[in-house]
Amino acid sequence: MSKLSNRERILVAGLKLVHERGFGAASVRDIIEAAGVPLGSFTNHFASKEAFGLEILNLYFAKTREVLAVSLRNDALPPLQRLHAYIEANTKTCQMEGVKVGCLFGNFSAETSYGSEKIRARLVEIFDEIQAAVKYCLEAAVKAGELPVNTECEDIAALIVSSLQGAILLAKAYRSSEPTDQFEKMLFSAVLR
Amino acid sequence: MSKLSNRERILVAGLKLVHERGFGAASVRDIIEAAGVPLGSFTNHFASKEAFGLEILNLYFAKTREVLAVSLRNDALPPLQRLHAYIEANTKTCQMEGVKVGCLFGNFSAETSYGSEKIRARLVEIFDEIQAAVKYCLEAAVKAGELPVNTECEDIAALIVSSLQGAILLAKAYRSSEPTDQFEKMLFSAVLR
Repeated sequence: MSKLSNRERILVAGLKLVHERGFGAASVRDIIEAAGVPLGSFTNHFASKEAFGLEILNLYFAKTREVLAVSLRNDALPPLQRLHAYIEANTKTCQMEGVKVGCLFGNFSAETSYGSEKIRARLVEIFDEIQAAVKYCLEAAVKAGELPVNTECEDIAALIVSSLQGAILLAKAYRSSEPTDQFEKMLFSAVLR
Repeated sequence: MSKLSNRERILVAGLKLVHERGFGAASVRDIIEAAGVPLGSFTNHFASKEAFGLEILNLYFAKTREVLAVSLRNDALPPLQRLHAYIEANTKTCQMEGVKVGCLFGNFSAETSYGSEKIRARLVEIFDEIQAAVKYCLEAAVKAGELPVNTECEDIAALIVSSLQGAILLAKAYRSSEPTDQFEKMLFSAVLR
């Protein structure tokens, strides 16, 4: 990370640490030490731990947006193949670190949404944006004849977003990719038919 | 709580506080103050915060077992009615405190399973026991002719447990019961048919 500014070092190391340990368990001191920057750097660059939390949430979401662009919103591929690609990208992310870390959006929903209204409001925007991309893909699948015309794209998109979060959460508890694999299998065999 | 011992006061007040704020954010001092007991009581009764965490997890699960007994495992009622009752009991729990708190099992999975192997192992046992009860109910529905004989009861039970956790997690982020209502609707209209 030699070319990064102290601010960037804190964000990169802090995102990794918070994703692993949780927002509460990763203290400012832990983050500073992991980033290898002076103790005063954190307060120089972030007004509060909540402000830092919002920034790492946005950093993580920037990667999610890249995934959405090459999967769900990638018109060059057949729609259901895009949905598979999106779910597999999520499964891969949650397999990081031995399936121990889960999804930052789910972790923040569970741990931080009660205590921070700003983080909760940002999570809602993020889930809305992901759900819109899933809906876009399902509608494309209907247009392409891959799904029946009476498919309830909005409702199924909401189900996919929440059920995928649940599968990632249980994968984290079980330290196994079985819940996410199971979800993908059941989605395509029992829901989308 | 006048008739409770200090130990019981700590467990009851501590469970409420941890369910609301999270395991990390509810400090031992906060818990002691909420319980209205002397500061030394916590260390007198619990070897560590992790040991306390395991006890509140078991206390919460004792209530879940009561729900399982009167819903999924209640042979006096038609099976799919039992499944509805189980999901609605979960929805009600997650609507506590203005849909802010979520399910303790999901919260612990997200926040605490990385840092505590004992709590993680207990969560796996708990999810397994809930999944077995859902499977039992689905098998009863097949026997009663409420579901087709080729229903994949084990796989669908796993999907129900993880998707319900996801719906409760999103309900917490959105502070709305729409994700859980949506899940119930989609489960019965799109999965179990």
